[in-house]
This record gives sequence, C-alpha cells and structure tokens, in this order.
Amino acid sequence: MRKFLNDPKTFVNEFLEGVALASGGALKFDPRYHLIYRADMPDPNKVSIIQGSGSGHEPAHTMIVGRGMLDAACPGDVFAGPPVEFVTETTKLMNSPKGVLYIVNNYTGDRTAWEMAKELMEAEDYKIGYLLVNDDVAVKDSTWTIGRRGVAGNFFVIKAVGAAAERGAEMDELERIGNKVIGQVRTMGIALSSCIPPVRGTPLFEIADGEMEVGIGIHGEPGRERRKMGTADEIVDIMLDAVVPDLPFKSGDEVCLMINGLGGTPISELYLLYGIAHKKLADKGIKVFRSYVGEYCTSLEMAGSHLTLLKVDDELKDLLLAPADVAYRVF
Amino acid sequence: MRKFLNDPKTFVNEFLEGVALASGGALKFDPRYHLIYRADMPDPNKVSIIQGSGSGHEPAHTMIVGRGMLDAACPGDVFAGPPVEFVTETTKLMNSPKGVLYIVNNYTGDRTAWEMAKELMEAEDYKIGYLLVNDDVAVKDSTWTIGRRGVAGNFFVIKAVGAAAERGAEMDELERIGNKVIGQVRTMGIALSSCIPPVRGTPLFEIADGEMEVGIGIHGEPGRERRKMGTADEIVDIMLDAVVPDLPFKSGDEVCLMINGLGGTPISELYLLYGIAHKKLADKGIKVFRSYVGEYCTSLEMAGSHLTLLKVDDELKDLLLAPADVAYRVF
Repeated sequence: MRKFLNDPKTFVNEFLEGVALASGGALKFDPRYHLIYRADMPDPNKVSIIQGSGSGHEPAHTMIVGRGMLDAACPGDVFAGPPVEFVTETTKLMNSPKGVLYIVNNYTGDRTAWEMAKELMEAEDYKIGYLLVNDDVAVKDSTWTIGRRGVAGNFFVIKAVGAAAERGAEMDELERIGNKVIGQVRTMGIALSSCIPPVRGTPLFEIADGEMEVGIGIHGEPGRERRKMGTADEIVDIMLDAVVPDLPFKSGDEVCLMINGLGGTPISELYLLYGIAHKKLADKGIKVFRSYVGEYCTSLEMAGSHLTLLKVDDELKDLLLAPADVAYRVF
Repeated sequence: MRKFLNDPKTFVNEFLEGVALASGGALKFDPRYHLIYRADMPDPNKVSIIQGSGSGHEPAHTMIVGRGMLDAACPGDVFAGPPVEFVTETTKLMNSPKGVLYIVNNYTGDRTAWEMAKELMEAEDYKIGYLLVNDDVAVKDSTWTIGRRGVAGNFFVIKAVGAAAERGAEMDELERIGNKVIGQVRTMGIALSSCIPPVRGTPLFEIADGEMEVGIGIHGEPGRERRKMGTADEIVDIMLDAVVPDLPFKSGDEVCLMINGLGGTPISELYLLYGIAHKKLADKGIKVFRSYVGEYCTSLEMAGSHLTLLKVDDELKDLLLAPADVAYRVF
C-alpha cells in the first residue's frame, strides 16, 4: 500500500495527534472522540462552531479548526460519519451560553449522527444551531445521500459563519449568514482516478486511463456519467454548464471561484483549470471577487477537481476577508 | 493520461496564466519567458529576488511570488531549467539599483543557466547576488547534479531572505542571511510512486507496490536505495537518521520541522509523519519552533515526502514569522 501509516486502525488518531502537535499549543487533541479543538475555547461570549464528517477529506475539516473557522472537529473514521457520542461529548466540551452551532454536510451517515445528537442535547436544554451544506449540483440523490451532497462549498460556510461568530454574532444571525452562503454556493466535480482507503488497502473503484467520472462523489460514489477523458477546456465547460445555470449565476454577479483539488492532482493543473474558468466566467460577465485554488475538500489521493462558485455581496465579502488562523497554512 | 490539460506543450504557460488571473492584479504574467512577477516591482529601495528552476515542483516557485517572498519566477518546462534568455530578460525587467538576487537550487541545468546569466549581466554592470541551495542530504552527486541537490529547504531560504529584503536589507546582508539558512537546513525524502510528466504521458520510472525509494530526487532520479516499504515510524527514523547527524542537530536546538508532500500524498499522511517526527525530536531534546506541513516542493503527482529541519536562532525566527503574501494561500 503506497501510504505513510503504521496501522490503518489508528490512522485517524495518529494524524490528528500530528495536527495538534503542529499547532504550537493552539489546538488540543482528545483521542477518545477523534477530537481536535481550540485550546482557547469555549468562550462564553462566542457561539461555538463544530463539525465532524468522515475522515479522508483533509484539510476538511480537522485542519480548519482555529480562530475565525471551526472551534472543534470530531470526525469519524475514513469515509464514515462520527458516532453520536463523539458529537454529544464534543458539544458538552465546547458548550457556550450563546449555543453550539453544528455545520453538517449532507450525507445520510453524518445527518443521522448530528440530528440525533441535536435531539439529545436539546432534551438536556443545550442551545443547538444547525446548518446543512448541500452545494454539489451533480446528482439529486446518490449512493449514501438523499438530496444534494455537501462538498467544497462547506469551506465558505465555515469561513463566513466563523468570522461572524468571532465578532460576537448570535445564533440566529449565524444561521442566517450560513444559509445565505448555502443558498448561493454551487459545486461540480470530476474525478480521474480512485482513492485508497487505508483499512481497505486497494482502490475503492476503477476509472480506466482515458476516462473520467463526471459528478463524482467524494467517497467514490457515482456521479452523472462515465465519459471519455476531455481536454481541460472541455472539462471546465462541463463544470460551468452544471454550476452556472443552477443558481443561476448571471452577468453582473461577483463570485468567489474555487478550484478544489481532490488530493492527487498537482496544483499546477488546478491553476490551469482556474485560468480557463476565470476567462470563461469573464466572457459571461461574471466577475471573480476572490480566487481559491488548492485542496479544500479531498478524497484521500483521488485525482480530480471540484469547481465551486459562491455569489458574494458586501456582507459576504467582508466576512470572507476577515482574519482566520488554522493548522492548514503555508507560513 | 490522468491530467487536466489541453496540450502538454502549452501546459506551463497555461497554468502560469491561471496563477496571474487568480492573483487579483497582484501578479503579472509574461508568456515569452514563463514569467510571473509582482505588479509592484521593481522597487528602487529593494533588492529584487528571482528564481527559476524546472516546472513541476509547484507551489515552488511560481506560486510563492509575492510580498515577502520572490519578486519574480521564470521557470523552464517541466523538470527543465530555464533558458539563459529567460533569466537575463527577467533580470532586466526586475532590475533595481540595489541589485538582483538569484536563488538557485543545485541542479546542473539550473546552475548552467543562472551562472551564465550572472556573467552576462555583470558584464553589462548589473549588480547580481547569488545563493545556491543544496539541502538534500540523500546523495553527494546524482543523475543531474554535482553536489547535493536543492529541495524543500529552498522555501526557508526564500522566506528569510524575502522578509529581510522587504525591510530594505542590502545585497551583502541578504547573501549572509541566505547562506546562514543554507548552512543550517537539511532534507531527506522518500518516494512511494513515480510521477507523470505531461509531455511524456507515462510514469517516469516505476516503484513496485510494497517498495519505496529512499533519498529520491524530485525528478525521479535515484536516491540511496530501493527498500521494502516500511511503517511510518520506520520511515521517520530513516529520514531523521539521515538529517539529524548531518548538521548535526543537537539537544537544546530549536528547529523548524517541515513535512513536505511530493504531490500525491494526502495531507492526513503528512500530519501523521509530522506527529511521529515531532515526538522523536522531543526525545532527542530538539524543540520545534514552528511546523510546516503540506506541499512546498513537489514532483507533480509523486506520492512521497521530504522531512526538512532548519536550525533557528532569534534572527531567523523573526524573519520566518514576518508577513508574506503569495498566490499559494488558503483564505
């Protein structure tokens, strides 16, 4: 197996310990709940924001815990939602008088855990907020999900809500902002290869060389169709043709344009896709406010990319540019 | 070929155009010389810092052009040093009365271009500085290099020198700081798979599943040995046993610890390696000042990692923490 690991069973806790050790004391790690949390949280003057989906999508979401983003993350095993107990224990540890906000990506396994936890915690008089991210336009329902899946757009939800929470916004306001982002963000992905979950040790599925999966899910679940591999120009057209009419994004709109790598695609190729998409959007009268090129939501070492568009206004621009500080950084 | 591209021949210029378009006006692009440069440079009060090695190692170095880092980058084609003309034309465009500093990674092709350009420019009375990065302890000489190769340690050289240049340091001072970093940084890499250069379309070499190349070069050139795949613990031991005694790094030292991904390795695995290395260094009495986990110097989609240690003192700590702003960013 072409992987750096000691034992597939301890893989998640071992990399999470690395995240905490790399943080210089800013983050703490609790192996009982696969939990990474801010050492300075909870804060009675701030809503706590937590998330926990399957592992294997890093940096989402354990590496975007920090000031202005998530306060804690409690992922499950690779490609598995967290057990309910991880969520309830994380909620208790991060509890604030202003409440705890759950940001959930729309996968049935994740929803089951987070919605059950919400019921349990509310029965104990905890104040719980809830946002459901479902930006992937590829398919209406998929292998593990009723409704659209939540993918790379999750980053923008966390960024906007995280910035507002840092400024002291109340729960209602955070849910309004989060749902505004969710209402204005759309994603479409294409994969060129499979990925290898550590416990399995072999590829989850196969994509022949010369083919691509259009509308791939981030656990390898099928998308819209298997097609002959296209040029980068053709691929950007496929992604824009799925995303742009869906909102729709229109001439005069300002957007954030994200080209997200799925884990195994060199960043040079992501910038190549970015340049094509930027110019094609300009041709449609759609202006890029800010670019996001790199890995935001991956599927282990899968080769492929998502294209995500978020329509922005002055409120969202301000929140997206607010400072944030997480493990996933360059300098 | 599992790649997002239109034509292998235009691959480099197409992704560079994407870098410029993504920068919101901060960077400019000149396709004649594969050139990315800061729109606000040259500045008569600042030494200009330029680099240009083979493409295919992104984000190094075209995506780390910006305030506090490089002022311009003029790479060659994938895995090929730039033509001399790229370097001389970039030098003329970026010329400052305080001089132009070349930061060169030690590969014979790169040195040929940059040293010839230096001679040509000095003959025309340009003031040229020169730093040679050679942090890779794996092999003394290799397929394309006399002496040690320059790899991920290059990032620290640029960061320190870039910060000092931004504060107005003169050329002599920048060369002193750069050579101090070069004298105190060491790297060792291990690869688990090959990479696929776009013009070739097939893997450059083969590593069988269950094997690893210890001391790999970033163009696939052989390292120390081909070995049976080890556990993450064993692999970190191999890397630390090569790096630590080489300087040597000693109990009481403070270091930057970088785990650099070679392009195809998920960041979760890099953090797993980080955690192991951090703890093993602590056992040796070596304290991590700051962590760097992610992709800094890649080899397209190669699976693998470098471990880099930089010994730091107060001067270097201050320079490493100075602000910088480049295309390669999260927010």
